[in-house]
Amino acid sequence: MVNNTERIPVLRVTEKGKDKIVDVVVTEFSLTITLDNREVATLLCSPTNLEYLAVGFLFSEGLIEGKDDIKEIEVDDEGGMVRLETKEDKGFLGLPSSGRLVTSGGGRGTQFYHAQGQTKVESDIEISAGEVLALVDEFVQHSAVFKATGGVHSAALCDSRSILVFTEDIGRHNAIDKVFGECMLKDIPTAGRLVITSGRVSSEILLKVAKRGVPVLISKAAPTSVGVRLARDLGITLVGFVREGRMNLYANEWRLRG
Amino acid sequence: MVNNTERIPVLRVTEKGKDKIVDVVVTEFSLTITLDNREVATLLCSPTNLEYLAVGFLFSEGLIEGKDDIKEIEVDDEGGMVRLETKEDKGFLGLPSSGRLVTSGGGRGTQFYHAQGQTKVESDIEISAGEVLALVDEFVQHSAVFKATGGVHSAALCDSRSILVFTEDIGRHNAIDKVFGECMLKDIPTAGRLVITSGRVSSEILLKVAKRGVPVLISKAAPTSVGVRLARDLGITLVGFVREGRMNLYANEWRLRG
Repeated sequence: MVNNTERIPVLRVTEKGKDKIVDVVVTEFSLTITLDNREVATLLCSPTNLEYLAVGFLFSEGLIEGKDDIKEIEVDDEGGMVRLETKEDKGFLGLPSSGRLVTSGGGRGTQFYHAQGQTKVESDIEISAGEVLALVDEFVQHSAVFKATGGVHSAALCDSRSILVFTEDIGRHNAIDKVFGECMLKDIPTAGRLVITSGRVSSEILLKVAKRGVPVLISKAAPTSVGVRLARDLGITLVGFVREGRMNLYANEWRLRG
Repeated sequence: MVNNTERIPVLRVTEKGKDKIVDVVVTEFSLTITLDNREVATLLCSPTNLEYLAVGFLFSEGLIEGKDDIKEIEVDDEGGMVRLETKEDKGFLGLPSSGRLVTSGGGRGTQFYHAQGQTKVESDIEISAGEVLALVDEFVQHSAVFKATGGVHSAALCDSRSILVFTEDIGRHNAIDKVFGECMLKDIPTAGRLVITSGRVSSEILLKVAKRGVPVLISKAAPTSVGVRLARDLGITLVGFVREGRMNLYANEWRLRG
C-alpha cells in the first residue's frame, strides 16, 4: 500500500541556523487508466482511491455514463493501473480521434514522469540564504495579478541578485513555459541561473527546469515526493516553502553558501 | 487586447450583512497551438504572452529544440491561436502516436471549454451563510494531508448539514473526480447536493459539477472569469473565497437564504 505522504530528510534553514529535520511531502503517483483495453489517460495523482479516480475521470470525460456501464474494474495498486471494462455492445462514444483524452490531472504529460534521458544539471554556482530571501521578496512584489485575485501562478528567471524575466499565468506549468519561451526568443541564457515558482514542485516542473540547465529551483510552496527525487537525481538544488525568513532545502544543499 | 483579469459584480457576505461590490477575477483563456499546421495542444491559460507560452510549451514537450528551429510564428490574440512553422526538412520528432500531447496546462480537456450541450442544473435548494461557514469549517478539519504538507487539494460532497464524502489529491481535478467516482460506485446521489473544493474554480470544475447535477459549488479559493460565466449559465450557485467568516457569491445568489 502506497501512502498519500512520505517522510524525507530536509535541511531547514532559519535565521537561527540550519537543522536536519524529517519533513512530510505528498506522494506523487502515476495512474494509467484503460477502458476496454485501450489506454485513455495517465494521471499524476495521490495514490489512494484509485478506483474512484478512474471511474470519476471516465465519467467526467463522458466515456462512461454511469455505474450500469461498468462490467468490471481491476485495480493494480503496485503497477499504477486501473483497467475498466464496460458491458458489451454498449456502443460508447469512443475516444475522440484528436486523442484529446490523454492528459494529466492538474498537470501535463506523463511521458516525462521519469528522468529518463534527461542529463544532470552541472553548475558550480552557489547562493546564500539571504539571497534566496531577497529574491523571493522581489518575486512577491512583482505578483500584481495574484495579489488582486488570488488565482494566478508566477514564475521568474533570476540570477543571484535580481529577477530577469517574470510572468504570471493561471497555470503553474504555463507560467514556467512562458518564462522559458521568452528566454528562447530573446536569447536570454537560462543555464546556471535560478527559477522561482509560486506553485507546487512536481516531477514535470523539475524536468522543465532541468531541460534548460537551471541548477536552482526555488518555490514558495511544497514539492512532491517525485519532485524531490528528481531534483536529487538531476543535480538541482531544490528550495521549498520559502516563507517568513525560513526555507527548506530538499536536494543538493551544497549550493547553499555559508 | 484581452487582459489577465476582469472586473465582475459580486455579492460579498460578511457578518455585517451583504454588499454588492465589484471584484477582480483572473481571465481564463483557451489557446490552441499548431506546429506546421498540425494542432498539438489547447491550453487553458492567461491571455498574455501567448507567443512565449507556445514556444516554451513546444520546447518543454520536446517538439522544438531551440530558436533556430523556428521559421515563423503567427499569433492570433482574438482567435486564441498561435501557429508556429519550423524550418523545412528539420526532421522533427513529430507527435507521439499516442496523441499524448494534447493536454491542458494545469488542467484538462479543452473539449469542455464551452458549456455546449450541458444542461442547466435545476434545484430549489437554499443554504444559509451560516451553513456554508460551518461546512467549510468541517472541510478544513478533514484536510489532514494538506495540513501536514501544504501540497494537496481536497474536495467533498455535502448536504446542507454535513460532509458525506471527502477526498484529497495532489490535483484539484482528481479530487473532484474521486468524490464523484466514489458516489457513483456507492450509489450516493449527487443531484441537489453541494460540493466544496479547496482549489481554484475554473471552467472544467464547473462542468464536472454540472454533469452531476450539483447546484451549489463552494470554494476556499478564487474562480476564473469563465468559471463565473459558466456558473451563471448553468444555474449553479458559486461561492468563493470562504475565509474568516466572509464569502463572495459570484452566481445564482438567490440560493443564499436570509
